[in-house]
Amino acid sequence: MSTDSVLERLAATEADQVRRLIDWLRIPSISTDPAYRDPTAQAAAWCADHLRASGFGVEVLPTGSPESPGHPIVLATSPGDEGYSGPHVLFYGHYDVQPADPLELWESPPFEPVIRPADGGADRPGERVVARGAVDDKGQVSTFLEAMRAWHDETGVPAGGVRMTVLIEGEEESGSVNLERFVREHKARLAECDVVVISDTGMLGRGRPAITNGIRGLTYTEVTLHGPDQDLHSGMWGGKVPNPINELVKVLADLWDPDRRVTLPGFYDRVREVGDDERAMWKTLGLDAAKALEGIGLPPEADVGEAGFTATEREWCRPTCDINGIVGGYTGEGAKTVIPTHATAKVSFRLVADQDPDSVRESFFTWLRERTPPGCRWELIDHGGGLAATTGADSPPMTAAMAALRRASGVEPKLIRSGGSIPVAGLLKGELGLDTVFIGFGLEDDRVHSPNEKFELECYRLGARTHAILIEELRGLG
Amino acid sequence: MSTDSVLERLAATEADQVRRLIDWLRIPSISTDPAYRDPTAQAAAWCADHLRASGFGVEVLPTGSPESPGHPIVLATSPGDEGYSGPHVLFYGHYDVQPADPLELWESPPFEPVIRPADGGADRPGERVVARGAVDDKGQVSTFLEAMRAWHDETGVPAGGVRMTVLIEGEEESGSVNLERFVREHKARLAECDVVVISDTGMLGRGRPAITNGIRGLTYTEVTLHGPDQDLHSGMWGGKVPNPINELVKVLADLWDPDRRVTLPGFYDRVREVGDDERAMWKTLGLDAAKALEGIGLPPEADVGEAGFTATEREWCRPTCDINGIVGGYTGEGAKTVIPTHATAKVSFRLVADQDPDSVRESFFTWLRERTPPGCRWELIDHGGGLAATTGADSPPMTAAMAALRRASGVEPKLIRSGGSIPVAGLLKGELGLDTVFIGFGLEDDRVHSPNEKFELECYRLGARTHAILIEELRGLG
Repeated sequence: MSTDSVLERLAATEADQVRRLIDWLRIPSISTDPAYRDPTAQAAAWCADHLRASGFGVEVLPTGSPESPGHPIVLATSPGDEGYSGPHVLFYGHYDVQPADPLELWESPPFEPVIRPADGGADRPGERVVARGAVDDKGQVSTFLEAMRAWHDETGVPAGGVRMTVLIEGEEESGSVNLERFVREHKARLAECDVVVISDTGMLGRGRPAITNGIRGLTYTEVTLHGPDQDLHSGMWGGKVPNPINELVKVLADLWDPDRRVTLPGFYDRVREVGDDERAMWKTLGLDAAKALEGIGLPPEADVGEAGFTATEREWCRPTCDINGIVGGYTGEGAKTVIPTHATAKVSFRLVADQDPDSVRESFFTWLRERTPPGCRWELIDHGGGLAATTGADSPPMTAAMAALRRASGVEPKLIRSGGSIPVAGLLKGELGLDTVFIGFGLEDDRVHSPNEKFELECYRLGARTHAILIEELRGLG
Repeated sequence: MSTDSVLERLAATEADQVRRLIDWLRIPSISTDPAYRDPTAQAAAWCADHLRASGFGVEVLPTGSPESPGHPIVLATSPGDEGYSGPHVLFYGHYDVQPADPLELWESPPFEPVIRPADGGADRPGERVVARGAVDDKGQVSTFLEAMRAWHDETGVPAGGVRMTVLIEGEEESGSVNLERFVREHKARLAECDVVVISDTGMLGRGRPAITNGIRGLTYTEVTLHGPDQDLHSGMWGGKVPNPINELVKVLADLWDPDRRVTLPGFYDRVREVGDDERAMWKTLGLDAAKALEGIGLPPEADVGEAGFTATEREWCRPTCDINGIVGGYTGEGAKTVIPTHATAKVSFRLVADQDPDSVRESFFTWLRERTPPGCRWELIDHGGGLAATTGADSPPMTAAMAALRRASGVEPKLIRSGGSIPVAGLLKGELGLDTVFIGFGLEDDRVHSPNEKFELECYRLGARTHAILIEELRGLG
């Protein structure tokens, strides 16, 4: 095996790798906003070129329909050596990013990446790259892309001879609305894969590598309550008609009971309880809820959520409901005495195995309709979502991944979960029966989805080394 | 008396009067938005020039402080004939207007006034002027300004010899935040007045003139709930921390009980109940709640509000609470899985005699503080307000006003109330002991505070004639 020389090459060419990542981060591929359609396509093409340079056969495939076009999917393949008998790996990532607002809170423009000292303090010198998408997910995908490039440059063989399919989509941050149809349309081809590898999660902390065996599902909705057909003067009409803001607020407030449990009928019926062993193991990880809250400017008493569970449990294995946005009436400076025509909220549910996103969404919509205020009407929009996913700790690909991470870091990795959602994992389980190994390199203070998002180069380096070594470990499974 | 010749002059010069009104409406005097500071001052100067041309002594007086400047107040005086022994009238109006948003719903630009056919159908031919401020309050103030101009042009004497003070302010639509201090600073001078006349209310309907003897008070607040110091990923944090939107919604929803009564402790303690006689008289006015709802696109079942009261009673003599605006988190297109740092609502209370706006506001703020979610903090802003005001039906100025309106219209006027708020009326009662006669010429379908606001020329004409005749009636009280 030439793994050592690949690792040496990775170390020697890191400046080039970071420069390439910065080029990618410069492209504002905000998938949720139609104004960024062109740069989003450009980010796909950039990624396709990268894979081509590593010897992959690459296609950039359109999604959606002519009336409602989606963002393209980059699909690349490496045939594997003739004698390769290890698993056929499906690597998944996404090239799209979250919107960058509120812009005024960025210390440098979100799409002009800069290198700054790392956040780890004097004990952990190093650097971080700051930009929207730095860690979620362009930076993490780059750890894989650059490992593949190093293998190809070193051996002339794509993916070091491992049979591999690479799927990089452009709608992860906007609900992956076209992915399900894409997977169905390419089912025969994707079903040849044996396991999914995704780098879009986090470590347990600096120097504490981890593999994630569970992520939450999601269903994301937008609900608008319509009332009068014109804005009204609150003097002439206040107290006479249903005010859509008053009414929306009253309905939504009933989503939670005093124990902060979600009140939708049957919401918890399909929740798979986590065993005492796993919950006990989580307690040994040294996660400090109060310290995490301090990091976001909150005191210890802000450690609230569903009654009867710790903060870690609430994130990793309990469903929840959040209003992610709300707007209605006058929101400018000063006072305007208006009763508006409508009010809107973006309401999402984080789900766990074995809750079904479609059922939860329909249950929510039914619940809203049962509470329609007098004379009003609902407009209910589905913004997509995905199943929760968990993977067995002792499966061969998981063992290979743990070994790769152990060798790359020199530390025993931990098995953790994440409260985030990677809908593709649920989708690939549902459609193709594939389990997913989440090897992630993010840190909790990476400001994912927030201003000043960053990825530390120490984490980047560990990621690239892990993916390089994983090639050898996968071959060893044959 | 030369009243007849004044009325003839009014009829002969109407085209000039409307042209002047349109000039005034062109000036976007949006007082609540600092971006419109210059045009707001320009609208004040325009009005001052108008009064000077009618022989008044006019001052344009600054308000606020150097650090926080307000919009100017136009103060004009007519000394009255030497032998004048009628009441010294204080005419009040405002030259500022509401913001024009949502702009896309205007059929013509809000500050490019146009003349269109009136809304009364084939039975009532005529025209309307369409613009922001057409009726509220530039159009109504113009009925007074033009009556004064006609008297001056006809007799050479300002205000036809009536002793009069005119106060036109520029902050009525933004809470009249500097008016109280202004009234206190000019108390000696204003205290010489005997009664207030205001044209900023409505008629009972087309061809149904009315005088208003009661308006509601107001207290307007803006409340922001602050949580984490950075936007959070709802996957990593959903269920772990208080989400400021969830929490704000839960707190605000408790403002109403199932009978749609406001739950603030003691909120109804100082509400002056209206006598059975007055409530019975209101029932004879032929007000049709279902028809009014139909006019704003709502079915009859939308006739909801405080239990136990009719729609008219809820508007005219019952207090209420409305959320006039709400905003938090992601409000753009599509999905963003964020837990935001804060959420804000504009919350106002319409009040009736003898509720005190300051007490209600403080009671609301105390109520919010008692419900502060764990680890969060409130930012509470007072956007001003005013006392409710009611006036005796048999006072001499009210009798004079009823007579003027009767003569101008040829119809017996009705005595009604309004759910709107004219804080100055409460202020002048509180500070100077002055009662107010509200002679208004608006119609319910004038789209006050909404896109396509208009004032019908038939209403304008009745207003100018009434103010012209009122001069004679006031002299007759001497």
